Amino acid sequence: MTGRTLHLNLFVYPGGHHEAAWRYHASAPERVLDLSYYVELARAAEAARFDAVFLADGPSLADDIAYATRFRLEPLTLLSALAASTERIGLVGTASTTYSEPYNLARQLAGLDHVSRGRAGWNIVTTGAPGAAHNFGLDAHPTHADRYARADEFLDVVTALWDSWEDDAVVGDRTTGQYADTSRIHRIDHVGPSFSVRGPLNTPRTPQGRPVYVQAGTSEDGRAFAARWADAVFAAHQSFDEAQAYYADVRRRAAAEGRDPDHVLVLPGISPYLGSTEAEAKALQRELDELTQPAYSIDLLHRLVGVLVTEAELDEPFPLERVADRGDEAESSRFRLVRDLAERERLTSRQLLHRLAGARGHLLVAGTPEQVADLVETWFRRGAADGFNIMPPYLTGGFTDFAEQVVPILQARGLFRREYTGTTLREHYGLPRPASQFAARRLSASR
Amino acid sequence: MTGRTLHLNLFVYPGGHHEAAWRYHASAPERVLDLSYYVELARAAEAARFDAVFLADGPSLADDIAYATRFRLEPLTLLSALAASTERIGLVGTASTTYSEPYNLARQLAGLDHVSRGRAGWNIVTTGAPGAAHNFGLDAHPTHADRYARADEFLDVVTALWDSWEDDAVVGDRTTGQYADTSRIHRIDHVGPSFSVRGPLNTPRTPQGRPVYVQAGTSEDGRAFAARWADAVFAAHQSFDEAQAYYADVRRRAAAEGRDPDHVLVLPGISPYLGSTEAEAKALQRELDELTQPAYSIDLLHRLVGVLVTEAELDEPFPLERVADRGDEAESSRFRLVRDLAERERLTSRQLLHRLAGARGHLLVAGTPEQVADLVETWFRRGAADGFNIMPPYLTGGFTDFAEQVVPILQARGLFRREYTGTTLREHYGLPRPASQFAARRLSASR
Repeated sequence: MTGRTLHLNLFVYPGGHHEAAWRYHASAPERVLDLSYYVELARAAEAARFDAVFLADGPSLADDIAYATRFRLEPLTLLSALAASTERIGLVGTASTTYSEPYNLARQLAGLDHVSRGRAGWNIVTTGAPGAAHNFGLDAHPTHADRYARADEFLDVVTALWDSWEDDAVVGDRTTGQYADTSRIHRIDHVGPSFSVRGPLNTPRTPQGRPVYVQAGTSEDGRAFAARWADAVFAAHQSFDEAQAYYADVRRRAAAEGRDPDHVLVLPGISPYLGSTEAEAKALQRELDELTQPAYSIDLLHRLVGVLVTEAELDEPFPLERVADRGDEAESSRFRLVRDLAERERLTSRQLLHRLAGARGHLLVAGTPEQVADLVETWFRRGAADGFNIMPPYLTGGFTDFAEQVVPILQARGLFRREYTGTTLREHYGLPRPASQFAARRLSASR
Repeated sequence: MTGRTLHLNLFVYPGGHHEAAWRYHASAPERVLDLSYYVELARAAEAARFDAVFLADGPSLADDIAYATRFRLEPLTLLSALAASTERIGLVGTASTTYSEPYNLARQLAGLDHVSRGRAGWNIVTTGAPGAAHNFGLDAHPTHADRYARADEFLDVVTALWDSWEDDAVVGDRTTGQYADTSRIHRIDHVGPSFSVRGPLNTPRTPQGRPVYVQAGTSEDGRAFAARWADAVFAAHQSFDEAQAYYADVRRRAAAEGRDPDHVLVLPGISPYLGSTEAEAKALQRELDELTQPAYSIDLLHRLVGVLVTEAELDEPFPLERVADRGDEAESSRFRLVRDLAERERLTSRQLLHRLAGARGHLLVAGTPEQVADLVETWFRRGAADGFNIMPPYLTGGFTDFAEQVVPILQARGLFRREYTGTTLREHYGLPRPASQFAARRLSASR
């Protein structure tokens, strides 16, 4: 297989992405705290030759835990367990730059890259949920701009830490007794507004050099950050036109940063509802939507756009005029997505809630395997995506259906690999392995 | 097997505990960054029915990396990978209360306990290496007393977080749509000098309720802390008398805290050198000692007690009169251990360095399998230990020899299990599973 091909991740959410997934008869909520459930999913994704499994995260508990499987298992420990249970598939975990210490997080991600022999990815988030602040001694969640400023500095620090051991720093010469060449292990001596970190890291450089950097924001700050740092972006789009514009924008910005735009993959989220006919697929979607609980969705909508609708208002047009001025948070990707969706499609509140219930604003597609493959191919060929983050509405069947029914079509069309050609996530994504910045400096100084 | 029996952990250090282990012909330094090495060790320990594998840690790089495999792999990611590769053995990882955020660490340890189905242990350290401060934005390492004050508050916070979901908080009733009973999920609302943490944790209660608490300090602060919090203590002793006195002291202090002394296991470190004759065992020890590099050991000694000896002075008596006044750090366990060892045994500097080279102050024993088993039995039966942290001088052979030669003797004497009787680390250690403090409060309020 030559030429440009698709990249696919399995985005694992405990019961599935639909908020009512756990109530669906074919889901397995009794297994969502057991490792075997995640191993089964990761192995199924690996058997389908997916690039990676992906786990979201946030360091606080959502209020909607009463209605759905919205707890969090810490991603880096879970992915490390999956590393030992799989051979090839990439392992992308979310962690917050706002609520982590860079030295600690750098070590954990280095650990994941070592135990997986080069399959670690980091989904970089600044954390949207304001409640997290109270778990970290802060009275208030930092502003969107402050979070992104800290994120930029955080990336400077952890990138230098991952580079602090040059690739050949470990010598291991039993005869001379030299284990490491300390001239190739570097302090980073970072001093900045948010962090002072001396380094070096206490772990030799990892198989990938650094984990793959993933990012999902679509705000102005988020796009600028992605252009500087991201190897892959996982965006949420509701329409082809929007996705195509975003795709072009990401590539333009990456080029403006002096980067090769082909080294910033755009992988939108998509939640597929499959059926042997389109009607059957739509019936599946309806069945899941009918299991939703208005109290849950009303609360979600309130948190996203500040509008509290009553159950009596659910079948009336969504009251756009009541969308609160969220000030700083109006910059957030999800706020704009929901507001724009309600505005563009003139949805009732119930319709809007169902759209969010499916995948919290990501694209839903209900159809036959051929129809879903067609959409994937169209977005891929027409400059809207380099691949997709697959968000099954329920698990595990919602994923195994995709793997068994859609993936073979994509393979038959020459769009997706039949076998892995590399062993690291960077290789799956077609990304170069970065050299240590310190090696580069040392070499240029010695020229 | 009834009655009191031994507990054994395998303390894994990358190349082995002897500082020159990596230079020894039968060690495998080329494998120390590869998961398969640790999986092999953990499975060997599980096959020998050990209670746990144990990993040390510190968030900085030791200067002696030039001479030895003294990097660190982050323990919680590595242990999570081992969780997926083993079935029964406990997994104890070290993490610092001085350089971690309690909400993050509580999540990682909860993650390890979930993925291992109840096999997580936490070795609680306040971090002795002053260099760590510079990786976390501090100009100076906090004092011993301040570190222990923070550690106490840290334990209050994480214990409450692990208790914040009662055991039956997850309802998962598909029909009513109630996933969790939020009246059984609690904010912790902690406000103290070092931390303000609202909670609840965002993860349901783990199989063990809380990870097993392990601690290793022998300073006054360390003993007081252990009496309050520890389920097991991993102490370093150089003599039976010292170990026996420590054992009695720990139990007395635990009782004074209102705890059952049998629920605080005392597990000293021991580094066994095995041979078919005592002479062969001592030859092995000598062979490893002769691979040491004075520059490494002199530096270690300088860091521990502040005395910088020259190579010319190595065969003279260790200059006790030059032991510096370390002020605050004189409180540290390791400082006192080294000073007392030099004083009691009137060692030359080279002899002292060799004693430290073996296992950094832990007990070395060189002998036949019967002799090592005799020592183990004596300490166990005569009130000096509930078991041991086994610190093989080199790996993997230094451990497999112990497993194959010493363990069967201990089993034949009825001192050690032949099969696991439980599935969690608490069960291996004979410790009760703690109830959630919030459940207890709710039940007492409703009485």
